[in-house]
Amino acid sequence: MTSRLLDELLNRNSKVIESYQAPPPLVPMAEAARQTGAATIILSCSDPRLNPYAIFGIDSSLQGISMVRNAGGRAMDAIRSISVLQTIASAKTVVVLHHTDCGMTHFHDARVREALVKIAPQEEETINTTKFGEITGSIEESVKEDVEHLRSSPFILPGTSIVGLKMDTFTGVVTKVTEAQIAD
Amino acid sequence: MTSRLLDELLNRNSKVIESYQAPPPLVPMAEAARQTGAATIILSCSDPRLNPYAIFGIDSSLQGISMVRNAGGRAMDAIRSISVLQTIASAKTVVVLHHTDCGMTHFHDARVREALVKIAPQEEETINTTKFGEITGSIEESVKEDVEHLRSSPFILPGTSIVGLKMDTFTGVVTKVTEAQIAD
Repeated sequence: MTSRLLDELLNRNSKVIESYQAPPPLVPMAEAARQTGAATIILSCSDPRLNPYAIFGIDSSLQGISMVRNAGGRAMDAIRSISVLQTIASAKTVVVLHHTDCGMTHFHDARVREALVKIAPQEEETINTTKFGEITGSIEESVKEDVEHLRSSPFILPGTSIVGLKMDTFTGVVTKVTEAQIAD
Repeated sequence: MTSRLLDELLNRNSKVIESYQAPPPLVPMAEAARQTGAATIILSCSDPRLNPYAIFGIDSSLQGISMVRNAGGRAMDAIRSISVLQTIASAKTVVVLHHTDCGMTHFHDARVREALVKIAPQEEETINTTKFGEITGSIEESVKEDVEHLRSSPFILPGTSIVGLKMDTFTGVVTKVTEAQIAD
């Protein structure tokens, strides 16, 4: 029943582990991150074309970057993760990264609802009142919306910087759209 | 106000884009994924030590892998993303990947609640009734719990295979814990 792709992933893992470098244990790593204040959270989209490690050239010289990814890189269901990550490592920078040609700009909530009602008609009321994160305006607007969502949330740590970035999917170019600061 | 790390990420991006290969546009890519049925979603933890691209050796020869990441790699707030990704590309394989020494095994819900009540005392009732995804048993158990969460959700596409994996954080070794199939 398992897919051929999964077999391939597990095969590749068995080769990768031959040169795997053991990372530090969580508890001292979190303690160090709290002291340096360097922990950062990147919130980005699930899209297969957007690899945040590749796009930012992140290698082992850059420590303490946690990745939250969901459909669209939306803030709406990222608050739990940000709260947990800020509790663990006091991450004081949150980066919101959206990208052009995002699936959420093509597939709007009405389309997701229609697909879900087909498989779960008994849940129609729930489905029709659920937001799925559609992006109906520009990417700059969705980035600003999510930075504002986080800035106005009571659950984000005082002193947190929130930075909104946009990636052009076809050139890879990342530009800053907006930033906000939560008072200390 | 921007962090030095963010400046470094943007600097690295300006070098990365020099050799950036433009990916295909979303709409034909999604159409192709629907036809081949190869689209896969990997749900994993936000931990900086867990890079799913590295651990599975994912390169450009493997297409159509969407990444959902949150604190713990928990199913609890991943349903929206899975619904959207399945609507877009009919992803029929969902991989749940948890890892040993996960922050959620060290920082339980009580600790997250305590941290949040300090910054948002007016939200105490909401905070105390919110689940934050703690892992109190073994990683095998949390993987099985989340595979079951997805298997029993009415919102997952018929015919979806759900595979539960565990990564040993210190060796990088990924092993299969469980799998489940949603009837066609």
